[in-house]
Formats: sequence, structure tokens, C-alpha cells
Amino acid sequence: MQKQVEIIKANGEREFFDEGKLRASLLRAGAEDSQVEAVLRHISKELEDGMTTDHIYRHAFSVLKDVQNPRAIRRYSLRRALIDLGPTGFPFERFLAKLFASQGFEVKNDQILQGRCVPHEVDLVAYNENKLVMVESKFHNRMGEKSDVKVALYVKARFDDLSEQLFDYGKARPLDEGWLVTNTKFTENAIKFGVCAGLKMVGWNYPEKGSMRDLIEDSRLHPVTCLPSLTKEERELLLNNDMVLCSQILDSQSKLIELGIKREKVTTIAAEAEALCGR
Amino acid sequence: MQKQVEIIKANGEREFFDEGKLRASLLRAGAEDSQVEAVLRHISKELEDGMTTDHIYRHAFSVLKDVQNPRAIRRYSLRRALIDLGPTGFPFERFLAKLFASQGFEVKNDQILQGRCVPHEVDLVAYNENKLVMVESKFHNRMGEKSDVKVALYVKARFDDLSEQLFDYGKARPLDEGWLVTNTKFTENAIKFGVCAGLKMVGWNYPEKGSMRDLIEDSRLHPVTCLPSLTKEERELLLNNDMVLCSQILDSQSKLIELGIKREKVTTIAAEAEALCGR
Repeated sequence: MQKQVEIIKANGEREFFDEGKLRASLLRAGAEDSQVEAVLRHISKELEDGMTTDHIYRHAFSVLKDVQNPRAIRRYSLRRALIDLGPTGFPFERFLAKLFASQGFEVKNDQILQGRCVPHEVDLVAYNENKLVMVESKFHNRMGEKSDVKVALYVKARFDDLSEQLFDYGKARPLDEGWLVTNTKFTENAIKFGVCAGLKMVGWNYPEKGSMRDLIEDSRLHPVTCLPSLTKEERELLLNNDMVLCSQILDSQSKLIELGIKREKVTTIAAEAEALCGR
Repeated sequence: MQKQVEIIKANGEREFFDEGKLRASLLRAGAEDSQVEAVLRHISKELEDGMTTDHIYRHAFSVLKDVQNPRAIRRYSLRRALIDLGPTGFPFERFLAKLFASQGFEVKNDQILQGRCVPHEVDLVAYNENKLVMVESKFHNRMGEKSDVKVALYVKARFDDLSEQLFDYGKARPLDEGWLVTNTKFTENAIKFGVCAGLKMVGWNYPEKGSMRDLIEDSRLHPVTCLPSLTKEERELLLNNDMVLCSQILDSQSKLIELGIKREKVTTIAAEAEALCGR
């Protein structure tokens, strides 16, 4: 039996707490029925008149995090979330740029570098005091799709063509590393060739330490597509406005409102963001 | 006004010559109305009782060849014919094998060659006393599709990976050349890179001497898909039975009959083959 508790919405209005709405939001976040009930039992004990929706939702999602196996769920949703950056590869490239930036690199997207034979379109150039790297980003729309050996081969040939040149990033310098990064997996031969040829290969679960999954979880740089209550339209809206990281949501809820997302929905999204990738 | 001439069909039966059938066949061959009329005028003067269908059709097509601009027509139909080898790339690979064989090479399709880092699937290996070459065949289903620089890059990296190995073709020997062959065109950058990197590049109209078009026309090794009266089903039937060259039709009309193509149709096909790629 639901308590009749009056709570305060994000816009300041008062309304009775609606357990159904919270239940739906938790289910959308991927929680199982039993987990949802556990969260609701927990929350209902603490409900008080005058609580804000924001507070209740954030609290509910943080309880969910304790109740469910957070690592398994987050892994599943994270893998899915990388796919949801599609259908084009551009948001994934911007996402990679932020990953590299978080590691202390200066980052430039879509650079043209002149090789010995031809100019090359390089998805990402990242550099710091110690090194200059080129990154080829290979985005796939389906989890089952793998980057094969041909991709590793052309990245290697491109690196070779660029390897005797000097580039002006911070200072005049040659390329130090060639990276191939994909949101899914590599074929066995792609890995074998890449490793043998000296490329840095990063896939969803490769290498054992430092995979895409590790990089994201260690740095808590989850993409916005992790947030379960975002509709497809909202996802596109955010990605098109360069909001690719979950953490950007926490830093700029007002931007979401400016973009036309309703205040109440922003509360839900922010609660999910706090639960999934809050610091 | 059509002459009432009794002619002999391929199965030995007699029937009145039907100008309509020949007209349709010439039109299907890509002749324009005025050209068809010119051919029919020419043929009607020479028609005699007791002529065979085979003779009449062959003659009609050879007249057509004189009447129309044969080079332009053949080029158009040749370009189209290469596309018609699709939708998969296998018939094009088999066709290339025959082109190389006609130049005096021993040829093997679908070879696995072990490189320094990984094994590679090589579409075609061709060798003679003087050299051993690997050929990457890139088939496109539409004329507008081009092979881009990434293809040239991966072929180069594959060649590099194979280049320090010895292979047993005729004798133990290293690779001498890497070829990239496409039925359509290359992008400008693909050509620039390929030439700079030392690959042999052959496309529909590249290089200026020795393009796919030149190779076919010079050797008169037109693919069966050049024959205008072949239906889609007949085309597939022939390709699936390793009849990829026009000249194979001339050498083995009985095989076509064995494959279930009607005797009369075989006559038409053979006449077209004689006109388009007879020696």
C-alpha cells in the first residue's frame, strides 16, 4: 500500500508521490522486477512530505546500484551504450577524443596528415609532452560485427606512409604510435597482425588490461547513451550538441533544459547519471 | 515486305524465316533501330531457301558489327558485362584467372599465404618462369563505386607482410609483385598511393595502357555476360559452371545444350559470341 506523501517537483509544484512512475523509470534502467520491489520497499520507508522528486529519484537509483549486481548490469548497458552512439561513427570519435583528453592528451578530430605518398584523413590526433599518436576509430553498429585484419593492415600501411614525416602538434615531431580503436571486437587475425606490426589495439574487451571497457569504467567516462530513460530523440539531441559524456549531464543540467528537455525529465536523467557515473 | 524463305533450324526442322525474331535479337544486343533496319536490309537480300538459322544469325551479327560503331558499343557493353559478373566477386576472380592464364601464367585461386605476422587469403596467385605475383581482386556491383585508398593501403601492408617469405610455386621463391585489380575505378588517392607504393594497379580504365578494358579487348577475352541475349538465369547457369569467357561458348556449344539451354537459343548465343569475341 502506497503512502500518500506530498513531494515537490523540479518546477516547485507539489504533487502526491507516484510509485508507478518511479517503478517504470527503474524498469527502463534495466532493473529486474525483484530488484525494483526491493528498491521501492527501501524508498517507501524514507518518504516524507516535502521531499523533492530529484532527491527521491537519485536515492532510488543509488539503492538500485546496491541491490543489483552493478558491474554486470553496467557492463551490459555500457556495451549497448557504445552501439547506441551510432548509427554514424562521429559521436564515437568525439567520445574517444574525451577519453584521450581525460588521460592528459591534447586532442584534434579529423586531421589531414601528409604522408610520403598521399594525404591521410586521421580520425583523431592526440599528443602530450612525450608522444604524438594517430588514432583510427572503427565504429560498428552491431555487437557481433568485428574489425578484421584488413582494417589493421590499412592502419599499418597508413602509419608507415606517415612515419617519416614531421608534424606540427605542440612542436615539430614524428608520429610515435598508431592506434586502432573499435567499440566492438577484433578478429583473432586482426589482433595477431596488429600486435606483430606494433599497433596499439583497443577493443571492447581487448587488451586484457586497458580495454575500452576498462578505460571507461576506470575513468568513469560513461557515454550519455548509458542513461536508460533517454529516448532515442533525446539521445540524438544530446549527441548533436556535443554532450557525449554522462558526466557532462551532471555538470550542465541547465543545458538540457535549454535544449528543450522537460524539467522533470532532466531530474530523472540527472538521477540516473548520478547513479551510473557520479563521482 | 518480308520474303517467304524457308530456313533450317538447329534441330533440323524447316520453318519460314521470321524477321521479327531476328529484329528482337539485334535490339537485345544493343543495336539502335536504324542499325537494325540496316542489318535487316542487308540480310534480306541474301536470304535463300535452305539456309540455316545459325548461318543467318551469325551473318546478321557480323553485319551489325560493321554497321554500328563497334568499339563504342562493345565498350559500353563490356563495362556493363563486368558488373553483370556479380553480385558476388567469385566469377570476376575466375575471369581474372583466365586473363592471367592467357598471358602465360600458371594461376591458383584462393590461396592462403603465411606472412611474417599472419596468414593471408590471396584471391589469385599467378606465376611463370620469371615472376610470382599476388592479386587482390576488388569487385564492385555498381559502375559508380570506386576502390579507395584504404584498399590500396591494406594490399600494400599485406604485400609487406608477405615480402620476406618464400613460397612454393614452381620453385621456392619470394613474391615479386602485388596487384590490385578492380572492375570499376580507383579514387585518385588510391592510384597515387598505389603507384608510389609500387603496387600494380589495374582498373576499368587505368592505367592508360593495360587497363582492364585493354586487357580484355586486346586478348578478346570477353566475359560471357557480354552476350546480350543471355537471360539472367542463363548467365548464372554458365557462371556457376565455370563458363566465364565468351570464347568458351564457341568452343563448347554442346555443353550449353547439356546444361539445358534450348538448341535454338544456343544458336543465337553462339552467333552473338562469334560477332562479339570470335577470332
